Amino acid sequence: MQIVVIGAAICGLRVSAIAERVGFLLAKEGATLICGGLGGVMEAAARGAKNAGGTTVGILPGFSANEANDYIDVKIVTGLGHARNVLVVRSAEAIIAISGGYGTLSEIALALKMGIPVIGLDTWEFEEDLIEVARDPEDAVQKAINVAIGGLI
Amino acid sequence: MQIVVIGAAICGLRVSAIAERVGFLLAKEGATLICGGLGGVMEAAARGAKNAGGTTVGILPGFSANEANDYIDVKIVTGLGHARNVLVVRSAEAIIAISGGYGTLSEIALALKMGIPVIGLDTWEFEEDLIEVARDPEDAVQKAINVAIGGLI
Amino acid sequence: MQIVVIGAAICGLRVSAIAERVGFLLAKEGATLICGGLGGVMEAAARGAKNAGGTTVGILPGFSANEANDYIDVKIVTGLGHARNVLVVRSAEAIIAISGGYGTLSEIALALKMGIPVIGLDTWEFEEDLIEVARDPEDAVQKAINVAIGGLI
Amino acid sequence: MQIVVIGAAICGLRVSAIAERVGFLLAKEGATLICGGLGGVMEAAARGAKNAGGTTVGILPGFSANEANDYIDVKIVTGLGHARNVLVVRSAEAIIAISGGYGTLSEIALALKMGIPVIGLDTWEFEEDLIEVARDPEDAVQKAINVAIGGLI
Repeated sequence: MQIVVIGAAICGLRVSAIAERVGFLLAKEGATLICGGLGGVMEAAARGAKNAGGTTVGILPGFSANEANDYIDVKIVTGLGHARNVLVVRSAEAIIAISGGYGTLSEIALALKMGIPVIGLDTWEFEEDLIEVARDPEDAVQKAINVAIGGLI
Repeated sequence: MQIVVIGAAICGLRVSAIAERVGFLLAKEGATLICGGLGGVMEAAARGAKNAGGTTVGILPGFSANEANDYIDVKIVTGLGHARNVLVVRSAEAIIAISGGYGTLSEIALALKMGIPVIGLDTWEFEEDLIEVARDPEDAVQKAINVAIGGLI
Repeated sequence: MQIVVIGAAICGLRVSAIAERVGFLLAKEGATLICGGLGGVMEAAARGAKNAGGTTVGILPGFSANEANDYIDVKIVTGLGHARNVLVVRSAEAIIAISGGYGTLSEIALALKMGIPVIGLDTWEFEEDLIEVARDPEDAVQKAINVAIGGLI
Repeated sequence: MQIVVIGAAICGLRVSAIAERVGFLLAKEGATLICGGLGGVMEAAARGAKNAGGTTVGILPGFSANEANDYIDVKIVTGLGHARNVLVVRSAEAIIAISGGYGTLSEIALALKMGIPVIGLDTWEFEEDLIEVARDPEDAVQKAINVAIGGLI
């Protein structure tokens, strides 16, 4: 099961704690964590996953594996800049969006375009029920796992 | 001057008329029209630009130049799927977003991330003044030209 | 008709003169010249095309239109690094390869993979007749035009 | 350690056996095997790696994780077509090229351009010593490991 976590490369302590908890729970459920491989939400989620013994993948925007955070097992070096966002989204069975800025918004929009389910935690809000809003990390991971195994959110 | 027009590949008559007018006015101003090269808003804008004697460029998502609409002069065949959205956005000095769905939202978000100015015509709404809202095609084109030549919107 | 010219970003006077002549002749034939938009062979070919009143397109690897050489009309800013080579190749009805290094070799290989005809001028040699070898710029342009309009090389 | 194996999506029994042996030995050495995720050499190498308990990554060209062969653990769904070759190459600390056609040639050329070492097994030949030629799978894996850990080939 491949679950993607998206969010900003810089974040505060509260959001970081949420992302770390999400990563931890995903790994406990046996999911592979895929993310953009950089700092902030991506690093916190990867740290959480490694603490639970999980596997982490970073799809990096730049030209070097060295830009990956310290908790990434598999480093995909794309050299594609923001175009790597498309790969991050496509590789997901479900996406958990945590807070986030414009980059995260672009990924949510791409997921909606591709029909990949998005669970939101304290992220961009939409008038319609375009994404599934989760209450907390436990709820987000449960929803992501459910949708990834083909069940309903 | 390179102005990008974004919007959905399928659209109604009202939106099509707006897009055609935008394309016409851009060409009259001497701007090169860049778009995604497909139907709907992209085709209408390109048709307008050709009617005014302009140059049109389509950055296509698929594997063949044949998917371009009939009004595209230069056909960039990317084979990148939605990742071509990133190129469409990056090639702009200013972007005019007309109506649009999730693909357009992803492009607006990428433009905000990259710091490329977006002028909106009947498109996605944001709480803050993230994009410049235009009243009509004349207003949109004027704003796009102004920002592209380095003036203020 | 879209003809692509590929070759190294740095080249000597002899190769530069060949590339400029190729660009000039392509524009005289009414073809749009597409290239990678940088220096060396790309710049010389674009200069030649502009001297003949043609249209030039540069598919740039970096993040800014400013990296285009002075003879590029349409600047496609990809931010994709070497992955932009794929777009350069795909957008061709025929490719003229002039001298060149590893980047040019990657483009020739991609063209062979995609079935896009390559005409070579003093470029990489292959044991089999994988690419069509031209004697001089006149011969190369004639062969490229012939294959682009559906005739035999 | 991330070692990339490249080669054609269709291959005969002899080449398949070589690729499987390479994958097996790489996993025994603790390397993560990265490949294009499809059939032929890619599938054989991944099967070998899984038989040795290794981790396998497939960087897929299409739009679905379903195109991965049965031995891929991590499925990167790029939707980029041949442009995914660039990512395959960039993610390598060393590359082992086994037999192969034009796609493989494009990857070797990109690796040469990027300065990533290539070890060849029964693959494209070059006049100069552009790539390191290996005698057999054991030799290829030893050379790849050596160069990946910073030693000389």
